[in-house]
Amino acid sequence: MAEATTEVTMDKLVSLCKRRGFVYQSSEIYGGLTGAWDYGPLGVELKNNVEHFWWKEMTQLHDNIVGLDAAIMMHPRTWEASGHVDNFSDPLVDCKNCKSRFRADQIDLEAACPVCGVKGEFTEPRDFNLMFSTYMGAVKSEDNIVYLRPETAQGIFVNFKNVVQTSRVRIPFGIAQVGKAFRNEITTKNFIFRTLEFEQMEMQFFVKPGDDQEWFEYWKNERINYYNKLGIRKDKLRFHQHGPDELAHYAKDAFDIEFYFPMGWQELEGIHSRTDFDLARHAEFSRKDMTYLDDQTRERYVPYVIETSAGLTRSVLMVLSDAYEEQQLEDGETRTVMHFHPLVAPVTVAVLPLVKKDGIADLAKSIEKELREDYATFYDQSGAIGRRYRRQDEIGTPFCITIDYDTKEDNTVTIRYRDSMKQERVPVSELAQKIRTEIKNYRRD
Amino acid sequence: MAEATTEVTMDKLVSLCKRRGFVYQSSEIYGGLTGAWDYGPLGVELKNNVEHFWWKEMTQLHDNIVGLDAAIMMHPRTWEASGHVDNFSDPLVDCKNCKSRFRADQIDLEAACPVCGVKGEFTEPRDFNLMFSTYMGAVKSEDNIVYLRPETAQGIFVNFKNVVQTSRVRIPFGIAQVGKAFRNEITTKNFIFRTLEFEQMEMQFFVKPGDDQEWFEYWKNERINYYNKLGIRKDKLRFHQHGPDELAHYAKDAFDIEFYFPMGWQELEGIHSRTDFDLARHAEFSRKDMTYLDDQTRERYVPYVIETSAGLTRSVLMVLSDAYEEQQLEDGETRTVMHFHPLVAPVTVAVLPLVKKDGIADLAKSIEKELREDYATFYDQSGAIGRRYRRQDEIGTPFCITIDYDTKEDNTVTIRYRDSMKQERVPVSELAQKIRTEIKNYRRD
Repeated sequence: MAEATTEVTMDKLVSLCKRRGFVYQSSEIYGGLTGAWDYGPLGVELKNNVEHFWWKEMTQLHDNIVGLDAAIMMHPRTWEASGHVDNFSDPLVDCKNCKSRFRADQIDLEAACPVCGVKGEFTEPRDFNLMFSTYMGAVKSEDNIVYLRPETAQGIFVNFKNVVQTSRVRIPFGIAQVGKAFRNEITTKNFIFRTLEFEQMEMQFFVKPGDDQEWFEYWKNERINYYNKLGIRKDKLRFHQHGPDELAHYAKDAFDIEFYFPMGWQELEGIHSRTDFDLARHAEFSRKDMTYLDDQTRERYVPYVIETSAGLTRSVLMVLSDAYEEQQLEDGETRTVMHFHPLVAPVTVAVLPLVKKDGIADLAKSIEKELREDYATFYDQSGAIGRRYRRQDEIGTPFCITIDYDTKEDNTVTIRYRDSMKQERVPVSELAQKIRTEIKNYRRD
Repeated sequence: MAEATTEVTMDKLVSLCKRRGFVYQSSEIYGGLTGAWDYGPLGVELKNNVEHFWWKEMTQLHDNIVGLDAAIMMHPRTWEASGHVDNFSDPLVDCKNCKSRFRADQIDLEAACPVCGVKGEFTEPRDFNLMFSTYMGAVKSEDNIVYLRPETAQGIFVNFKNVVQTSRVRIPFGIAQVGKAFRNEITTKNFIFRTLEFEQMEMQFFVKPGDDQEWFEYWKNERINYYNKLGIRKDKLRFHQHGPDELAHYAKDAFDIEFYFPMGWQELEGIHSRTDFDLARHAEFSRKDMTYLDDQTRERYVPYVIETSAGLTRSVLMVLSDAYEEQQLEDGETRTVMHFHPLVAPVTVAVLPLVKKDGIADLAKSIEKELREDYATFYDQSGAIGRRYRRQDEIGTPFCITIDYDTKEDNTVTIRYRDSMKQERVPVSELAQKIRTEIKNYRRD
């Protein structure tokens, strides 16, 4: 019926994102800001939907996980305890000839400068901390430095005791958070994959030492299931276990979930067995007690942590990449279709009157207005119906409703499905419920 | 039946927020970070719900408004065009004796220093810019300064043409955005009311010059209706029109919506008639065309802007303040009850088995699990039922479901309403629908 053509390329994605208002270059009218992107009308809805899907999945559907939202600016001692002040750096070199700056681990120091071509004129590598810093208050002194958090996790660790004391959680339990983090990366690249500011969706799960291996396996399993539920194709996802040389200083074991992006396999999410490293460090630096008392067994211990750390912005890139398809239709036409899961599609229902006259447009508008309370809708009355379907396919609208003369007669409408392009006649009175059921039962062809 | 006592004080609110996990001091284990707060398990749900309520109201329910999410870091020219580099500052003075720093407009420069008591030893006032700045890239030079945005509005103005060109909006239309903004305030105060980082919910509505007065009135009306829909008591809200001396440099007219907070009447939201100030400035500084072509009349003009600018974090303080009540019950007991609108309450439904034995707890758990797909639920089986109701009242849970021996017999449960404390028997099969209807018809007593 319809045949898929080639794999999506990054160029095609970037072009569609700009053309249809998913993602714009940040501050474009001023020449742009490298490594920063703005989400347009469709992009912000897609991003919000992915965020809400994760949040609901982690907090509402897991009765042992609660949420948190810590401030971006934290007390600077936090980053001494976490190791970021000392260790969160890249080695940089300058070309003595043209003053260009490079990451020492990304170029050959014996070779020619990639910018000016002069050979072997690099400075010694120096460590450059990736945290953005600023000053709080009116005085720019060392005492007033604050950092923009480079990760959201520490906001959870410093609040561990607050959460235990003020909510009714008992180990094992998790704390989930979504928020911005900032890294002063010298090389940002791959569109919204690596950017200066980005959003993380992290969950720290606190367990009894000794139970950590079991929970590590549990969360590996839960997290891969999550992507299946989000409708991501299974053959685009894989696990990658960190070897001894890849493990971070805090990690006992770590798996990445990788996705096959247009630029190849890349990390989407990390699942980390962090032991008691973080809580013990904060206990040491703050001189506060970070132990947990099991009120059943009267045991007291510093919990171990299993972390699931996903990128929201790169999840959006994953959803865009996985959804994209160009199809050769029977009539020789090509259609670009975004196979978003209906739960994350920016527009859920498009309402399209076949003609404007004889009250058909007004009828369509009233149907759209009723659906609006429950669904993200879009009303479009201009152009041939085929062109209107193509526009909706390209932004991934799963359901199109057409209103025609029969609607006036028998109160039925046509519902047209994005993936199969099949059409079905449905009474207006059953429409909202029909869409609900279709969303629940959705499977990508 | 129940009698309200006194007005809520800030101390009572702060205490409840900490005790029940709504809001914690940021980085508390390190002595806190002044002017920053973290949202705990209940606080983050409340904040998210208020945000989603605003977003749905503005975008989904208005077919002429689209969303946007711009990066926090923008090209620095943005802030020259907006006037923030030159004008966004407070006058500060230092005490020459003790080096303490004050806002010149908040102390009497002839009087004694509030810290050391020495008289009249203040420096001349100097302007201090309120924008946080940092450096992008490895070199700390003037060329690499970036600011943390002090408001979200400019992200919308710089993307005006992008949105017009890539979505199907036609004037009059609006662009809505929620996001963090940062101000290096010397005096933060009143709990989460004035903080260093905060979240704004802004909408810029673009209109034809000449139509701005009409749309200004429209949005004043829409925005006050919004607060009524959110369940805020009418006598706690009022308009305040800016006098000629209060108007910002860009404003033609401005109204604040004020709320009666525990510390008195304070601004909650601003509705501003901004003319073409912003778009004209960006056209000037970027040398890009910012005009709009009306494709019906072929007129070309720089649109005028009506802005509605609300604080999310101070909206949360409003919702908390307005919800709080202490009631003297008939039996002499006092209950603290938070009258949150069910759409923003952190927990929608609590499920409480009257006893644990004879399979009652398991039955309750299975009912809770079914409700979880649609509602934020909380399961609690410990303690006397009266105490459990009190706990839910204090966190504002609108519906408590109790499961007892009759449930096993006839598949009915008791639904207990927070505000009235009335109880009603409902079949399990109708429970989800019953809650949906109650939410829709909710009115605070």
